[in-house]
Amino acid sequence: MERGKFITFEGPEGAGKSTQAAMLIAKLEAHGIEVIYTREPGGTKLGEAIRGILQYNAANEDPCPESEVLLFEASRAQLVRHVIDPALARGAWVLCDRFADSTTAYQGFGRGFPVDLMETINRFAIGSAVPDMTILLDVNVSLGMQRCAKRQVGQKIKYDRIESEALAFHEKVRQGYLELARRYPERFRKVDAMRLPEPIAEDIWKLVHDAFLAKK
Amino acid sequence: MERGKFITFEGPEGAGKSTQAAMLIAKLEAHGIEVIYTREPGGTKLGEAIRGILQYNAANEDPCPESEVLLFEASRAQLVRHVIDPALARGAWVLCDRFADSTTAYQGFGRGFPVDLMETINRFAIGSAVPDMTILLDVNVSLGMQRCAKRQVGQKIKYDRIESEALAFHEKVRQGYLELARRYPERFRKVDAMRLPEPIAEDIWKLVHDAFLAKK
Repeated sequence: MERGKFITFEGPEGAGKSTQAAMLIAKLEAHGIEVIYTREPGGTKLGEAIRGILQYNAANEDPCPESEVLLFEASRAQLVRHVIDPALARGAWVLCDRFADSTTAYQGFGRGFPVDLMETINRFAIGSAVPDMTILLDVNVSLGMQRCAKRQVGQKIKYDRIESEALAFHEKVRQGYLELARRYPERFRKVDAMRLPEPIAEDIWKLVHDAFLAKK
Repeated sequence: MERGKFITFEGPEGAGKSTQAAMLIAKLEAHGIEVIYTREPGGTKLGEAIRGILQYNAANEDPCPESEVLLFEASRAQLVRHVIDPALARGAWVLCDRFADSTTAYQGFGRGFPVDLMETINRFAIGSAVPDMTILLDVNVSLGMQRCAKRQVGQKIKYDRIESEALAFHEKVRQGYLELARRYPERFRKVDAMRLPEPIAEDIWKLVHDAFLAKK
């Protein structure tokens, strides 16, 4: 049995990762490929318990920034051993909406923890589950934020209240992703996500098809 | 306000860490010193939630070995920022029953994860909370195991069923601790814990008194 392919979607909020993952899954399944789709944190029982702590504050106490990184990594390690590795081994493909590069981009480039340290902890957490392809959906910060705001139906967003600090943070995250794409050209594929979903999906399909499905 | 002293107790199960910590606390408090005592994992609301996952399997799914390390470290990071650092800053002393060296000894030397990597993750988790003194209670493996077995009241322990693998593991942990004591002589103090509690406590008191309380 040939090992499945492991594809991750990365990019800022509002880049369209979930939409594009869904469109890619549909195309892959139409080709008869079994696809496992995961979102971090979660995806395992342990990961859901950690997600409860991270997103719903189940512990009734905010994690410090270091704990936050380590809890994300703990959830990731479990997801790799219980879901990703076994799926790839039996020939299924795995698509992840965010993976290790998110920690490097957000907590490293964004929040200022040492980037190399984030990558070291990532390597420990993911073991051999290095993505075969990482699709970076690149949008500029203002468009990404606009798209996110539209999701919050019924909630007035006052753009003038968005602090310049938040903008600067998201810009650091974006630049961090672009740096990672330069650092790992063998697996990163940057896609211009400042367009409508369909042309973006076409670009992604071409990348995936050419890399993994075209007759060699 | 002078920063308090941070003292950790390390050693295998059955070395007498809790007993010795209690005896040291009594002596320090008799000297008018405020002492905070903590045990890992736990000590914060977040840490208790993590403890539930690690020790009571609250997630109903065993963590993989990598997740186990990362969850311990997440709990530790929170304990440092929420309990240890603030206590030391206000002049209280902190005594920990196990701390970062336990991960290095058990998961590094014992389980075989790279020792340097365990230390790197430790440094990220603990930040500036490096112990002023680490008391290594050294016992040989068979005595440590005997002491642990005695605790299990009403439960027959069949020594012949203890696998040689388990013995080898605990021996690796012990040797790992001794290696750490050689590597960090400025903070490690090895104490022969194969004796009755009182003479051990006397040795520890002399070490602590001479290092931190004697008029210089």
